[in-house]
Amino acid sequence: MTETLPGWREGTARKAIIDFVARVCREDSQEFVQQAERIAVFDNDGALWSEQPFYFQGLFLFERLRELADRHPEWKTSQPFQSALEGDWQTFKSFGSKGLLDLAVVVLSGTTTDEYECIVRDWLATARHPMSGRLYTEMVFQPMLELLEYLRGNGFKTFIVSGGGIEFVRAFSERVYGVPPEQVVGSSIVTRYQVRDGEPVLERLPELNFIDDGEGKPVGIHQHIGRRPIAAFGNSDGDLQMLEWTTGGEGARFGLLLHHDDAEREFAYDRHSAAGRLDRALTEAPGRGWTVVSMKNDWKTVYP
Amino acid sequence: MTETLPGWREGTARKAIIDFVARVCREDSQEFVQQAERIAVFDNDGALWSEQPFYFQGLFLFERLRELADRHPEWKTSQPFQSALEGDWQTFKSFGSKGLLDLAVVVLSGTTTDEYECIVRDWLATARHPMSGRLYTEMVFQPMLELLEYLRGNGFKTFIVSGGGIEFVRAFSERVYGVPPEQVVGSSIVTRYQVRDGEPVLERLPELNFIDDGEGKPVGIHQHIGRRPIAAFGNSDGDLQMLEWTTGGEGARFGLLLHHDDAEREFAYDRHSAAGRLDRALTEAPGRGWTVVSMKNDWKTVYP
Repeated sequence: MTETLPGWREGTARKAIIDFVARVCREDSQEFVQQAERIAVFDNDGALWSEQPFYFQGLFLFERLRELADRHPEWKTSQPFQSALEGDWQTFKSFGSKGLLDLAVVVLSGTTTDEYECIVRDWLATARHPMSGRLYTEMVFQPMLELLEYLRGNGFKTFIVSGGGIEFVRAFSERVYGVPPEQVVGSSIVTRYQVRDGEPVLERLPELNFIDDGEGKPVGIHQHIGRRPIAAFGNSDGDLQMLEWTTGGEGARFGLLLHHDDAEREFAYDRHSAAGRLDRALTEAPGRGWTVVSMKNDWKTVYP
Repeated sequence: MTETLPGWREGTARKAIIDFVARVCREDSQEFVQQAERIAVFDNDGALWSEQPFYFQGLFLFERLRELADRHPEWKTSQPFQSALEGDWQTFKSFGSKGLLDLAVVVLSGTTTDEYECIVRDWLATARHPMSGRLYTEMVFQPMLELLEYLRGNGFKTFIVSGGGIEFVRAFSERVYGVPPEQVVGSSIVTRYQVRDGEPVLERLPELNFIDDGEGKPVGIHQHIGRRPIAAFGNSDGDLQMLEWTTGGEGARFGLLLHHDDAEREFAYDRHSAAGRLDRALTEAPGRGWTVVSMKNDWKTVYP
């Protein structure tokens, strides 16, 4: 017999998960849920892998910006490109989240979808985290991998619902999380179908299609999944509406927030972090019946 | 032993399907495809159920228009509503496909997503086809139901990729086709997340989000599925790019067009039909290696 959730310490969080699964999966349970309706949604950044010192896709974006800068001399004198290239974070931050978004849309477009997938895969295969020196895909959370597996073993279909780029996450979700591309929801830019020299391609345009964050998460879930999840796992205020939408339905529901309070093994941040801010959701969690996981106390291990 | 595809007559079409499945599923085959990559996409209108005298969702739309007309006196004097309400099809058609789309966006919005699902389900449970007198869901094609089942039995994941509304199709896809909502791609209007009196809802807005037709189909497939299908099944020029995108990839690929040539058991139409026009794709099918199915000759039965 293999142990259930071996990376989780005995405690209220682990118990809440196991109790919920028993309540919805046991056929004699009053709260039994048909297998088809066992939909679980997971945020990615900060919920399945780390997100400090900044979202990993952001670090990828800045590297890509520098790589492409020679071909775009106009970036040297136009914002927000100039400040990002010069590493002038004070100025860059003054453009707010719109600055980052404008940058992302321009820098991450201009290729076909196949080319983009290769670029992301190459980066993930070689780039190292600036502090840990690990590959980014080695900074996924062992207890969460176990949780994904545990839910799937109990008939759940697991989806990722990320504020990050849908194509970025898909480039590694199947290999690393066991979540196939068709079960990834995320932010996206517009793509256009074209036949080039007889070969059909999808071209990535510098135009925003969808932001899958905050109030966008229930919208993205509905668009992609078409039914309401019964369990949601997040770690930041960007996940608040996803948890609200999930746990606001009838019958047994489960909402979980991972609290990054482990400066020794990972990072400690919450209400004032630039990436993965957890403020309102942390305040409201007890009143809403959401389980708050302390990385420090509830997890035996962090990384695999 | 149960017979394979019993509703299909012996012939080139049935043989082409069975040969393709053997080529990609047999582990000793040079063209073996991993199960995760066995993605098959199906158009809905005219491919899985009938679409004459007009797309069934269009018939639903006109009924809904009349139901709501009392609450919208302004429709009596503004186009394209006026002509649709008066049954003045000559004038209505003069607004082209944009007229139909404008009508759809306004008439089918204004509810929550849950309410809309109930409205569609109620209609499907009671409304009768004007010519056959059947329920619309009784006008699905028996040989295509067998084909869906046959592919799934061979490890394929089956998706619907419809020019029709994603929420309309999802209201019956699982029950009728065995295709769960998360495997339906379609056209959509914008939805917005809201908390009303403490209850989270998704509100359907009168604003177009995405048209999943023609060049939109490969875009919708990429957005929802994130990998290229290896088999595509359609019946009209609106499916041309879906078949092109699917069969343009490497390895074994399969494209199929259903030709409605059976006026006796269903309908006969192709190059000049208002709904489901099949013109360019029919001309190009032989050169592209796509299988053309004659409903009249290849199918033993049409409806269940």
